[in-house]
Amino acid sequence: MKRITFLLAALATLGGVVAFRAPASGQTEAEAAPSYGVELPPGYRDWRLISVAHEEANLNSFAAVLGNDVAIKAYREGTLPFPDGTIIAALHYSHAASEENNKVFGQSQSFVAGAPTNVQFMIKDSKRYAKTGGWAFAHFDKDGKPGNEAFMSTCFPCHNQNKARDLVFTRYAP
Amino acid sequence: MKRITFLLAALATLGGVVAFRAPASGQTEAEAAPSYGVELPPGYRDWRLISVAHEEANLNSFAAVLGNDVAIKAYREGTLPFPDGTIIAALHYSHAASEENNKVFGQSQSFVAGAPTNVQFMIKDSKRYAKTGGWAFAHFDKDGKPGNEAFMSTCFPCHNQNKARDLVFTRYAP
Repeated sequence: MKRITFLLAALATLGGVVAFRAPASGQTEAEAAPSYGVELPPGYRDWRLISVAHEEANLNSFAAVLGNDVAIKAYREGTLPFPDGTIIAALHYSHAASEENNKVFGQSQSFVAGAPTNVQFMIKDSKRYAKTGGWAFAHFDKDGKPGNEAFMSTCFPCHNQNKARDLVFTRYAP
Repeated sequence: MKRITFLLAALATLGGVVAFRAPASGQTEAEAAPSYGVELPPGYRDWRLISVAHEEANLNSFAAVLGNDVAIKAYREGTLPFPDGTIIAALHYSHAASEENNKVFGQSQSFVAGAPTNVQFMIKDSKRYAKTGGWAFAHFDKDGKPGNEAFMSTCFPCHNQNKARDLVFTRYAP
C-alpha cells in the first residue's frame, strides 16, 4: 500500500500541474500548501500538446500532457525557469487494450486511452508558491474531487528532485 | 518482412490522416489515389488533442492524435460521417523508456515520447476522395518524406474495415 501511494505520488509529480484561483484572502492560501488553493483551470482540454506518457506497474496509466500558451512558448523557446503564468496539465486515462484495433492488426498490440482517471496540474507563480519552488500542484479525480492533503503533500518533494529543469519532468515532443 | 509491412500499414491506418493541397489540375490528383496529392498541413502541431495511442510489437510506437477545428467539433458533437474539411493528425514517436523518470519511481515503469518517427494524416473531402471513402491519407517520415505508392495503397483497405465510424479508428478521449 505504501508502495502504491508512493507510485501515485510519483505520477502526480511526473504529470504534475496546478491551476489558478484568485486568492480569496491575500497570501493565506499560498501559505497553506500543500492544498495550494487551486481550482480546475477552465478550458484546459483545448490547450496544446506538450507530450504523451505511459506508466506501467500499478499505475497502468496513459497521459496526454498539455500546456497553456505561456507553457507552450516556454517549452518551445527552452525557457528555464518557466515564467509565472505557466500551467501544465496532465490528463490521465487507463492504458487500455483496444480489441477493435487488435482485430485489424491481427494480434494484441494496440493500446488506447481508456477511462479517464484524473487530471493533474502544475501552476507557476514564483512569489505565491515560493515555498514549493514557485509551483502549485493540483489533482482532480474523474469526478473533479481534489486530492487530499496527504496525497498533495507528496507532489513537491518528488518534483523537487528535478531542480535542473525547474521541477518539471515532462519534456516537449517535437 | 511482409508482417512488418502489414503492421506499418495498419498503423498508418489507425493513426491515419491526410492533408490539404489545392488541386493543381481539377480532379486529376484525386483520381490518382493512393498518392492523394497531399502536402504537410501547416500548423498541425498546434491542433487540439483527440487522444493518445500506443502500439507494441514491431511498431513500439507512441501516438498523439490531434485534430483541426472541424475534426474536434465533429468528435465532440459525435458527428458521423465527418464533415468535409476534417483533418486528423497522428504524430508518432518511439515508445521510449525514461531512465530519468524510472530513477524517481524507483523501478522501471515509465515511458515517454522518444524520437519522432512519422506524422500521418486523414483529410476528408467526400467528392475529391470519393473513391477512398471520402478520405485522403498521407504519411511523412521524420524528414518530411512522403510514403511511397506501395505503402500508401495499404491505408484505405485497412481503414475501410471500420465503415461504422467513417473509417476513423481513433476515439475521442474526454
